[in-house]
Amino acid sequence: MNAHIITIGDELLIGQVINTNQAHIGERLGAIGIDAVEMTTVGDDIDAVLRTFERAWKTSDVVVVTGGLGPTHDDITREGICRFFQTDLVSDPDVRRHVAALMARRNLPWTEAAENQAMVPRVAVVIPNPVGTAPGLRISREGRHFFVLPGVPYEMTGMFNGSVVPFLSPLVQGAVIRHRTLRTTGIPESFLAQHLGDIDTLLEGAKLAFLPSAAGVRMRITVHADSPADADRAVNEIEARIRSKVSKYIFGVEDEELEDVVGRMLSVRKLTIAVAESCTGGLIAHRITNVSGASAYFERGVVAYSNASKTELLGVPPDLIAAHGAVSKEVVEAMALGVRQMARADIGLATTGIAGPTGGSAEKPVGLVWIGFADASGSLALRFTYGEGRTRIKERAAQSALDLVRRRLMEIL
Amino acid sequence: MNAHIITIGDELLIGQVINTNQAHIGERLGAIGIDAVEMTTVGDDIDAVLRTFERAWKTSDVVVVTGGLGPTHDDITREGICRFFQTDLVSDPDVRRHVAALMARRNLPWTEAAENQAMVPRVAVVIPNPVGTAPGLRISREGRHFFVLPGVPYEMTGMFNGSVVPFLSPLVQGAVIRHRTLRTTGIPESFLAQHLGDIDTLLEGAKLAFLPSAAGVRMRITVHADSPADADRAVNEIEARIRSKVSKYIFGVEDEELEDVVGRMLSVRKLTIAVAESCTGGLIAHRITNVSGASAYFERGVVAYSNASKTELLGVPPDLIAAHGAVSKEVVEAMALGVRQMARADIGLATTGIAGPTGGSAEKPVGLVWIGFADASGSLALRFTYGEGRTRIKERAAQSALDLVRRRLMEIL
Repeated sequence: MNAHIITIGDELLIGQVINTNQAHIGERLGAIGIDAVEMTTVGDDIDAVLRTFERAWKTSDVVVVTGGLGPTHDDITREGICRFFQTDLVSDPDVRRHVAALMARRNLPWTEAAENQAMVPRVAVVIPNPVGTAPGLRISREGRHFFVLPGVPYEMTGMFNGSVVPFLSPLVQGAVIRHRTLRTTGIPESFLAQHLGDIDTLLEGAKLAFLPSAAGVRMRITVHADSPADADRAVNEIEARIRSKVSKYIFGVEDEELEDVVGRMLSVRKLTIAVAESCTGGLIAHRITNVSGASAYFERGVVAYSNASKTELLGVPPDLIAAHGAVSKEVVEAMALGVRQMARADIGLATTGIAGPTGGSAEKPVGLVWIGFADASGSLALRFTYGEGRTRIKERAAQSALDLVRRRLMEIL
Repeated sequence: MNAHIITIGDELLIGQVINTNQAHIGERLGAIGIDAVEMTTVGDDIDAVLRTFERAWKTSDVVVVTGGLGPTHDDITREGICRFFQTDLVSDPDVRRHVAALMARRNLPWTEAAENQAMVPRVAVVIPNPVGTAPGLRISREGRHFFVLPGVPYEMTGMFNGSVVPFLSPLVQGAVIRHRTLRTTGIPESFLAQHLGDIDTLLEGAKLAFLPSAAGVRMRITVHADSPADADRAVNEIEARIRSKVSKYIFGVEDEELEDVVGRMLSVRKLTIAVAESCTGGLIAHRITNVSGASAYFERGVVAYSNASKTELLGVPPDLIAAHGAVSKEVVEAMALGVRQMARADIGLATTGIAGPTGGSAEKPVGLVWIGFADASGSLALRFTYGEGRTRIKERAAQSALDLVRRRLMEIL
């Protein structure tokens, strides 16, 4: 089964509202084995709405429409439904009672607009809206289904998950879809592809998408199968094959972040960490403390922006800074060793670099970052060169630093 | 002129990625007077891509396509362009040089994928991508324009605003739309509306949207006029009327963040700041250091997560923590005074609170945050209670802390 998702509203076309509805619907349909093959957004314009209804209904088993169902003049979806399915509006007593009850609870008087909300297309089955006044609609013809839901995300998601998914789910036979996302960092998309080798042999008909960002490349596996068991088996096999080739770059699955993974590793090993940041400016500490329970392993962080603070808070000798510059292997190792010692932590992690846009030189350009690591066995430092862009450099450096901890703890660096 | 926005990528159809590109493009086109009339999303499927190109190019003056431009097998947009415009790929020497320079700077060897990135459709004009390897494309025919940009939002927005908008803007005549966004914090939407009073008198036919988020409420003014001068005049008048009613809650306009505003205020006044964070975990330092030139006024930050670090790094007496608890007015003021003194800064800013989800009590629930401020005249502390949600509490506390600095510097607190 395939689906076309239609979202209606001028506010989407002018970019005032970001379209989260279509992503939500696409995700939930995928989870029950229905492929969204197209998403279309049009404004509050009856001709555009009718044209889109016609195109979608011609090619898709399932059409989901959101928006334009309210009581005001710009809400034209019901008119579109009536014209498209050649039907008229009738008052629905259940909807009318529900609207009246909602309005009474909010101490609002009965109005024409309220009366209007109870009018539904004659051929439609009502989908109840527990939290709002605009009812949803379903029109089914020859095994195909046309749904209409309000555009308010809070109302839409409740109705979609509560009524549409339970209706569609039993109708989907055979085709099961499974996705799995493997998160990598420290390797560009093209190198990842190269390491994977012949992609067709690897995938055996499944799909693999590469989704790059500053945090690294996500690899998303998509498998179609006849049963949930087959789908799980296939996705597991492909994951294992990918891991056998690029294991050390994969830090997590699905929405896992590096700070979650590193936090778990520190907890299990009963280790503590302290962080000394210059160019990342607090971002590493912020990410580590985003994880609930971080206080068990995160002792302290220092954002040592000035040279004086590097000396006072971390014990970096002024001579060392004078000799090598604040952005150097020597200083970043001294920072990592210093914060580890001051905090009496098991691990010290440090960054220093040039986030720009000013302050770069030929020898030390914008984007140059040193990352230092210290533990009981001593210290080491890695040199990175990122592109331009202050926030992007901070993001990439923080990601590299957390990944350095991950790799040291796994003994793959 | 009207436009059709096409976004390509399986990740959008399965809802893994929320489509922010189309909203951004729709908004920016609207700002120069081009109406987006339709947005279509299709997957990495050549037939769907070609079908959509054809439909869009038949009915729109401007087509903007994003996504599917990378070097891997699932990136099929260039193939679509070649087939649709019946052309072939040629290596572009400028793009090739740019890709080579980017890869050299990142210490990456030259690969086939890199070579491939330099291949562009013969009929296209290249739109430079300053920060990535995938070039953008423009194909113009009889006063109509077809643009192709990469899907990575960071790359896309830079290229769209830097190249596409300046190209299209002079071609648009007549109806002018102006938006202005006023950013507020520290006041809920309903109170803001109350302070504004009779909205119709205020707006005189313009539109005002309230867009709430954890950082505060954005108020967006939309004005339609016949000329740019009329539009500017109208939007300025409405802004002035709004400011006359809720001035102290407005910290900035458009995309300005509080850290930009506070940074500018500190620079102008030649003041320095140091930050001591407990519950915000480095987020305030991270935000302050996101601003280019922050090293001029940001001396250091301390993420004092453990009680020992509060004492060692900030000089907070252990007795004080024992008597009042780490989350208290007394401790947050001692932290602000301590970091100010240790850093020899003009201003000390501190946070302590319970970010949860565990660690709350009846007396000190999750969401309780104390924010402390110290300057030459002494110290003060404000108590906040936010809702649940660890990252949301961190975000709201960081926002309140930066706003506290803004208000003190403006002497409106």
